Amino acid sequence: MTEKIRFGVIGAGRIGRIHVENLCYNVPDAEVAGISEVEASLPATKEWAKKFGIANIVSDPMVLISDPNIDAIAICSPTDTHADLIIACAEAGKAIFCEKPIANDVEKTREALEAVEKAGVKLQVGFNRRFDPNFRRIRELVQTQAIGEPHIIKITSRDPAPPPAEYVKGSGGIFLDMTIHDFDMARYLSGSEVTEVYASGSVLIDPAIGEAGDFDTAVIVLKLANGSTCVIDNSRRAAYGYDQRAEVFGSKGSAQAYNNTPTNVEVSTGEGVTTDKPLFFFLERYMESFAQELRDFTEALKKGSEPPVTGNDGLQSLLIAIAATKSARENRPVKISEVL
Amino acid sequence: MTEKIRFGVIGAGRIGRIHVENLCYNVPDAEVAGISEVEASLPATKEWAKKFGIANIVSDPMVLISDPNIDAIAICSPTDTHADLIIACAEAGKAIFCEKPIANDVEKTREALEAVEKAGVKLQVGFNRRFDPNFRRIRELVQTQAIGEPHIIKITSRDPAPPPAEYVKGSGGIFLDMTIHDFDMARYLSGSEVTEVYASGSVLIDPAIGEAGDFDTAVIVLKLANGSTCVIDNSRRAAYGYDQRAEVFGSKGSAQAYNNTPTNVEVSTGEGVTTDKPLFFFLERYMESFAQELRDFTEALKKGSEPPVTGNDGLQSLLIAIAATKSARENRPVKISEVL
Amino acid sequence: MTEKIRFGVIGAGRIGRIHVENLCYNVPDAEVAGISEVEASLPATKEWAKKFGIANIVSDPMVLISDPNIDAIAICSPTDTHADLIIACAEAGKAIFCEKPIANDVEKTREALEAVEKAGVKLQVGFNRRFDPNFRRIRELVQTQAIGEPHIIKITSRDPAPPPAEYVKGSGGIFLDMTIHDFDMARYLSGSEVTEVYASGSVLIDPAIGEAGDFDTAVIVLKLANGSTCVIDNSRRAAYGYDQRAEVFGSKGSAQAYNNTPTNVEVSTGEGVTTDKPLFFFLERYMESFAQELRDFTEALKKGSEPPVTGNDGLQSLLIAIAATKSARENRPVKISEVL
Amino acid sequence: MTEKIRFGVIGAGRIGRIHVENLCYNVPDAEVAGISEVEASLPATKEWAKKFGIANIVSDPMVLISDPNIDAIAICSPTDTHADLIIACAEAGKAIFCEKPIANDVEKTREALEAVEKAGVKLQVGFNRRFDPNFRRIRELVQTQAIGEPHIIKITSRDPAPPPAEYVKGSGGIFLDMTIHDFDMARYLSGSEVTEVYASGSVLIDPAIGEAGDFDTAVIVLKLANGSTCVIDNSRRAAYGYDQRAEVFGSKGSAQAYNNTPTNVEVSTGEGVTTDKPLFFFLERYMESFAQELRDFTEALKKGSEPPVTGNDGLQSLLIAIAATKSARENRPVKISEVL
Repeated sequence: MTEKIRFGVIGAGRIGRIHVENLCYNVPDAEVAGISEVEASLPATKEWAKKFGIANIVSDPMVLISDPNIDAIAICSPTDTHADLIIACAEAGKAIFCEKPIANDVEKTREALEAVEKAGVKLQVGFNRRFDPNFRRIRELVQTQAIGEPHIIKITSRDPAPPPAEYVKGSGGIFLDMTIHDFDMARYLSGSEVTEVYASGSVLIDPAIGEAGDFDTAVIVLKLANGSTCVIDNSRRAAYGYDQRAEVFGSKGSAQAYNNTPTNVEVSTGEGVTTDKPLFFFLERYMESFAQELRDFTEALKKGSEPPVTGNDGLQSLLIAIAATKSARENRPVKISEVL
Repeated sequence: MTEKIRFGVIGAGRIGRIHVENLCYNVPDAEVAGISEVEASLPATKEWAKKFGIANIVSDPMVLISDPNIDAIAICSPTDTHADLIIACAEAGKAIFCEKPIANDVEKTREALEAVEKAGVKLQVGFNRRFDPNFRRIRELVQTQAIGEPHIIKITSRDPAPPPAEYVKGSGGIFLDMTIHDFDMARYLSGSEVTEVYASGSVLIDPAIGEAGDFDTAVIVLKLANGSTCVIDNSRRAAYGYDQRAEVFGSKGSAQAYNNTPTNVEVSTGEGVTTDKPLFFFLERYMESFAQELRDFTEALKKGSEPPVTGNDGLQSLLIAIAATKSARENRPVKISEVL
Repeated sequence: MTEKIRFGVIGAGRIGRIHVENLCYNVPDAEVAGISEVEASLPATKEWAKKFGIANIVSDPMVLISDPNIDAIAICSPTDTHADLIIACAEAGKAIFCEKPIANDVEKTREALEAVEKAGVKLQVGFNRRFDPNFRRIRELVQTQAIGEPHIIKITSRDPAPPPAEYVKGSGGIFLDMTIHDFDMARYLSGSEVTEVYASGSVLIDPAIGEAGDFDTAVIVLKLANGSTCVIDNSRRAAYGYDQRAEVFGSKGSAQAYNNTPTNVEVSTGEGVTTDKPLFFFLERYMESFAQELRDFTEALKKGSEPPVTGNDGLQSLLIAIAATKSARENRPVKISEVL
Repeated sequence: MTEKIRFGVIGAGRIGRIHVENLCYNVPDAEVAGISEVEASLPATKEWAKKFGIANIVSDPMVLISDPNIDAIAICSPTDTHADLIIACAEAGKAIFCEKPIANDVEKTREALEAVEKAGVKLQVGFNRRFDPNFRRIRELVQTQAIGEPHIIKITSRDPAPPPAEYVKGSGGIFLDMTIHDFDMARYLSGSEVTEVYASGSVLIDPAIGEAGDFDTAVIVLKLANGSTCVIDNSRRAAYGYDQRAEVFGSKGSAQAYNNTPTNVEVSTGEGVTTDKPLFFFLERYMESFAQELRDFTEALKKGSEPPVTGNDGLQSLLIAIAATKSARENRPVKISEVL
């Protein structure tokens, strides 16, 4: 059957627009049947949507959720709306693609997941980095046992510039806001569950971040159920740009992903041999992964199979982030079971 | 002015479809107003064009060329039709994007270029590799004198698999069919004109190619007007895939472009440390350049500026290819002035 | 003054012979005036020493220590003899180069260091990795502030094959036996002192190592006085050989050292693109550093300056190793002040 | 038999001293029994030789050549003395290691080789680059057919700085003085003989070199008997240092050797990602190869086998260099048979 999956997209901010563009251009089996955006941004959204030929632009997301012509909803609105929108979608029987996180607290997350389960609808959480070709390749090498059983997992994740301290106040802190991607990556690459977390945070970049009660530099050690150990290092500011690397060291070998660059040109002069800095930030670095996550979601809907990132994946990363926050504050390893 | 350039596309084979897709999705200032394709392929083309919402599919290219709603024509039909279509477009006052080569003989090429000049229309020839980010970066380093005056230019261009010997018979031979891209690259990277060619060809891969009067392996030395020397090496079959590299060595340093790969994952095992083979062939390797050449062409039309690859660029590469063919046959350096 | 420093070498096992060879061939200002070795190995040692023209081979190290013609003693005998030999050398007024560790317990170490201080002799501990050109380069980049203030330090240290479980029983465990080099590297690269340790150990390679009460895989987090955090990952068996890498991430940038390989040849075939595995083990990998540490020690003696690795460096690494052992056993971060 | 080969070394200039040091320190089966040097340099040579314990320093090379205690002579004196010294050594029944070239003309070279053949002594010519681990590895990959039959060979050889134009006048020109190493490398890597040469030279760096009748930049194409083609590019001045790379592209794959560097440290800052320039010049770059060529020569003498670089290797490279000079002057391909 070649019929396309018809998406309604809630929220046309930066990430929502990326998803609309991908659904229109890079996901052959999908199309966008409507977009909702807050009243104030409707005119700009309508203007922008013209080039995709999308005319159905509304201010009330329920219009899309209750539209019988729409198969799936992509939730790209602010975090605090996610859980309620998931519940509404589930009740309306829609398939759901939701940006991460589902919520910043466990109870709300569970509530949403229960609604999904009860309704029996499909839900995929937007951990897009899983769809990056480099990391996906490492995952395959683990799954095929090409590098044996995982022993040590290393993830480097450093941003090019810190967010304003203001933002940090409401974000839940570095572990919920930034490291949560790496927690998901640890689970993804290892194929195992985290059981214990030791987190160390420091303020080395912007004292205002410290005054807001957060860290700007962090190192986290995860113990996993399969016996492996994962180390994550985070910084809010890498002078050379966005640093996103990972390594899985296993019983038969090791697989490493390096940074992607705009070109691979190498320039040799009297000063040295120089190559490009990494792609600047997540929009460039993960461009391909944003398209791929929607292709895979759409494919799962068409096949009726389980989406590749589940609601439980969203919950687990949240639990690890909460445990990490507790660990850094209390300066001791914290078991996941403590924060359940 | 935000109005889009309206393209008619002649020929919806492999390269024509790539151009249509790029014009629809990756060139914001362009749109496709019609496609022509030979009668036999009309139904398949119509079916395929649906997803882009293109309904104007015709069998006679003149319908597009004479359509007052069309601003520019992309010529993607077989080589032997290029020159006449260029002339028709010129006479109709259309801007022209033409796949390389304009023609396989000099007279026909000149005739087409004269029509273009007489009509005063814009013409861009499809030397897409100039728009590859790696090679473009090297060009910039030359232009900004970051590596000084060019002294030695090296281009490696090896295909993953040879064409059938049948194809080779009609292609004009390796220098016209394959090396012509490298001849253009030499001019592009150096910013200078070729004055003399020494070409050496051999048959090491497929004796049938030799029986068809062609070579499957070649090394070519070009002398350029700015005093630099360029070396090109070609093979019809690299066991590891599509090998596309270049280096410009100048008075202040050197710039090298390496192959692009699907991922940058490095796998270390007891067997060694292994990375990906190059992207397999030109569709993957030059994907970005196919979009960029049309963005730049469209931008030139909107600005009324000279397109970045001119008709003369098409002519010069043809002359070099003809001189190379003569050189390989006569085993002596051949001046470009000899083949004018 | 061009007079050479005359060395007596105690112990002509694997490392002792390397030092003799370097002192003879690669340290222009040094010469070997005598070697001591246990009685049983005297004949073999004498035979081996011929090629260096060394005739003074004795079984009693005190013969060398009390020899007025000898300026410096290199202690290369088993660990449990180090402290007493240091004391004897100090009392005899000899300069001392001692293989690491000084001792496996703090008291004995302190006792030796006090003797050294009292006698006012020079002592260098054999943390040879500091003299590796890669790591030395990173140290310089930190010292010159080229990468700013250190924020995160990462050290990967994996052996090609585990020692016999028997050996592990007497070695003091992975943190004293293997990670101690990395603890020193953390102090060296950061230029700061470790204040707290969190260590996680697991048994993933050889159950016999676990039965002997040790780990074969470990991840350690160090907090340093300058605010930076260091992560070390260890494995007793990397399938691809000896893995020795380090990174310092600082406020202005990052510096990384990769593995050294026998050649830099890259082989591209239908199977992939393959390069060499790392140099197999420490003798090959650190060959240059073994010579350099003795050149620098000799230079310090000639200049009367402080040797580049001090007795305190030996003590600090021991304290960190003891704290790490405690941390792994008690599953909590341990302050260095707890183990003083 | 463990007896050492006793060398006499003629000439204690830069290269002679390297050989003496290697024979003393890095060739276990060799020792230096005497050195000859011109009268004026005798005192400095004697002083220098002390550290190796070599007392037999003479001004007349015949003293060494006629010394019955000497097994082999290393000829490290100026080029114009090589042939006569080879003849004298051959008549005295000594094994001969001779720096390249044997002579700058064919007749003199043949005369020397005939004397060697008549006397039945062993002769090795100092093409040290064959013993570089990178190039040796490529040779092995060709010999084992790991990359199949060679199709294209590429050699890049660029010096960090040009010699004085004065030197160039007496050197025989770039092809005899510099490219001759690359001609030998082409034969070594391919395992085949050169049949035809096309050489292109230009003067882009120092006009004085042009006035002296030589080139400072050159590109050379060699046709080989096995059907492969080799391309060499030379420059007398690479701004970034000594550039020594090679690639063999064969029917089953490709093997490439890159430059060696002092460290492998990669520094990422806001300016870019920078690594070391290549090792500065031949003494650093080929340090290991200078030791290895003497180990292999010594081993050949001990085993009575053919040395790895023969007199014919010296002759062939000379013939190619002469043909290249002729080709560049006459601007046409020149067959080796023309210069026999």
